[in-house]
Amino acid sequence: MDLPTRFDWQKLQQFCCDIFVKAGVADEKAKIVAESLIQADLRGVDSHGVVRTSIYMKRIEQSMIDPHAEVAIEKENDVSALLNGNNNFGSVVGSKALQLAITKAKKQGVAIVGVRGSNHFGTGAYYALKAIEQNMILVVMSNASQTMPPTGGVRPFIGTNPLAVGIPAGNHRPYLLDMATSVVARGKIIVASQKGESIPLGWAIDKEGNPTTDANEALEGSVLPLGGPKGYGISMFIDIFSGVLTGAGFGKYVNNMYENWEKPQNVGHFFIALDINRFMNIKQFKQRMDLYIDDIKAEPKANGVDEILIPGELEFRREIERKKNGILLPEKVVSELKEIGSRYGLEIEQSRFQGERAKDGVTDVSK
Amino acid sequence: MDLPTRFDWQKLQQFCCDIFVKAGVADEKAKIVAESLIQADLRGVDSHGVVRTSIYMKRIEQSMIDPHAEVAIEKENDVSALLNGNNNFGSVVGSKALQLAITKAKKQGVAIVGVRGSNHFGTGAYYALKAIEQNMILVVMSNASQTMPPTGGVRPFIGTNPLAVGIPAGNHRPYLLDMATSVVARGKIIVASQKGESIPLGWAIDKEGNPTTDANEALEGSVLPLGGPKGYGISMFIDIFSGVLTGAGFGKYVNNMYENWEKPQNVGHFFIALDINRFMNIKQFKQRMDLYIDDIKAEPKANGVDEILIPGELEFRREIERKKNGILLPEKVVSELKEIGSRYGLEIEQSRFQGERAKDGVTDVSK
Repeated sequence: MDLPTRFDWQKLQQFCCDIFVKAGVADEKAKIVAESLIQADLRGVDSHGVVRTSIYMKRIEQSMIDPHAEVAIEKENDVSALLNGNNNFGSVVGSKALQLAITKAKKQGVAIVGVRGSNHFGTGAYYALKAIEQNMILVVMSNASQTMPPTGGVRPFIGTNPLAVGIPAGNHRPYLLDMATSVVARGKIIVASQKGESIPLGWAIDKEGNPTTDANEALEGSVLPLGGPKGYGISMFIDIFSGVLTGAGFGKYVNNMYENWEKPQNVGHFFIALDINRFMNIKQFKQRMDLYIDDIKAEPKANGVDEILIPGELEFRREIERKKNGILLPEKVVSELKEIGSRYGLEIEQSRFQGERAKDGVTDVSK
Repeated sequence: MDLPTRFDWQKLQQFCCDIFVKAGVADEKAKIVAESLIQADLRGVDSHGVVRTSIYMKRIEQSMIDPHAEVAIEKENDVSALLNGNNNFGSVVGSKALQLAITKAKKQGVAIVGVRGSNHFGTGAYYALKAIEQNMILVVMSNASQTMPPTGGVRPFIGTNPLAVGIPAGNHRPYLLDMATSVVARGKIIVASQKGESIPLGWAIDKEGNPTTDANEALEGSVLPLGGPKGYGISMFIDIFSGVLTGAGFGKYVNNMYENWEKPQNVGHFFIALDINRFMNIKQFKQRMDLYIDDIKAEPKANGVDEILIPGELEFRREIERKKNGILLPEKVVSELKEIGSRYGLEIEQSRFQGERAKDGVTDVSK
């Protein structure tokens, strides 16, 4: 049969949750992991969506993730904590770190929580959005396995270590930056290669470390940090905060989720939560945020630009659209989910999107 | 007479300090401002060095900086503070904020200090280095007047808001990132224009917002944020932390130091200080930092690359070289300093570098 390619986000979330539960993950933890994945798909960050279900499941099955591990608080005071995820799911570990950071920051004004012994934690936006809901500012970062060379290097050494910052606004959508520290996602180079197109100079180097515009040579080489030495520097301090300072892996000691089946990843994260009220009444702050955003959006626009966007704005719109019209999944992802489902007695087909596509002019803005 | 172009760093620092004192600045504050300027020259960040003496003096003389203002603590608890610089020198205000942040972080583990009512505060590295000396990690940011468009915009809206991060190491030099959030310093475009050379695509847009490789068109347009939307996002959160949250100016409400003679700048800064010991014994942390740096420096190098550098490493070397061989100042800067000196009965000539240039093979690595 032809599988449906559009899925209802709530049913798909339940399907993923059920899979993790069948694999032995406790209900509340399975909900966190599934919510984190679906939220990424809704926001258009497909690379961090249900496409990851398969690798997460494989790592549970191969004992490379321990969904029963206790997330332990190793050090703690009023404004800081160090957690050991003991190799549980990254989003489970990250959620506990976030909760601690917010609770402490509400009491004290600011809090920092470092995490070691974790895994890939999904998108930083997942945590930032939860902080924003509570009128808090969040800075969250994570290290990752090796993908980018240091400036002057030839081969991958640091990860595309992500940085996310979430800040509430008033009438406007919140400010929500969630970025990898690479020039561009590797996926864009894969697409160029498939189309036989060249890539802009500055995206990548070949395996000898020479700048290249050849997508195939780039794929054998490495994607570069954004902004040259600046991105290398940013990626490096994220690694130091998340890894060197917490006792997690860093640099070559963060293990690859897809390639290393001997050892857990030992990813590290770092959370900084801030209580706005310590500086300014939250109402006044939100008015200032709205003024700032109004000012930016009123700026004159370059040729061909319809609108000046605020970080996160496009993703908020995608979420509305995809909640309304379903999440479109590539055939390959559907097949993987079907196969996993069949092993656990669950049917992905039941999550298909049933409604008509909305005809109110809302289009998928993700492409 | 031909003026000397190479100056002894200590004598030059004393000369600048004396100038500020003659203009009515209290000794201890004049020392801070002069130290901040000379340190920038020593580190090769000439744009933030004694070249600024002239504009700082002009702003005092025009009552646009108030060197007698009290730096007031408006809000404070164990781990946070909000300062009002009341329009004193940026480096004076920033130094007080740093001191508060470090004192609190040593007691509690972490501290945040926001600042409003300040001026251009020199380099972020100035504060980060002082934190490193005390085995602390520092994140420091500042907003600035308008120089870059938002992504999709045409004209300057946000500043090249700088971000600095300082982290101690053991046997190696500390990690010290100090970066503007633009692709490149505007000075590099000026140089290209003077040489009649084109600039790489992506550095700047023309005044209509179109990408340009013409240096002259770029100078009439705007320099771009590093990494496109990512740099725009980073610059924006720096503006929000430093300006929106503190009550300082933000976006178009940060006044230009060179052009606005009606109002103080109302620059804002934000400091985050972390005590490493709350996470890990400082000795163990430094060993891990050394391992990290050793690993990076041992990576294979691209063709033509002699050495892989750590953020800040080049600047530490320049400092050694310039302390030994003097600071080379362009004729224009020397003339300005001479003119200011003559108004206050001070002679720049007495700061000339007297020694022979060292012949031990150390060369100026700043070019």
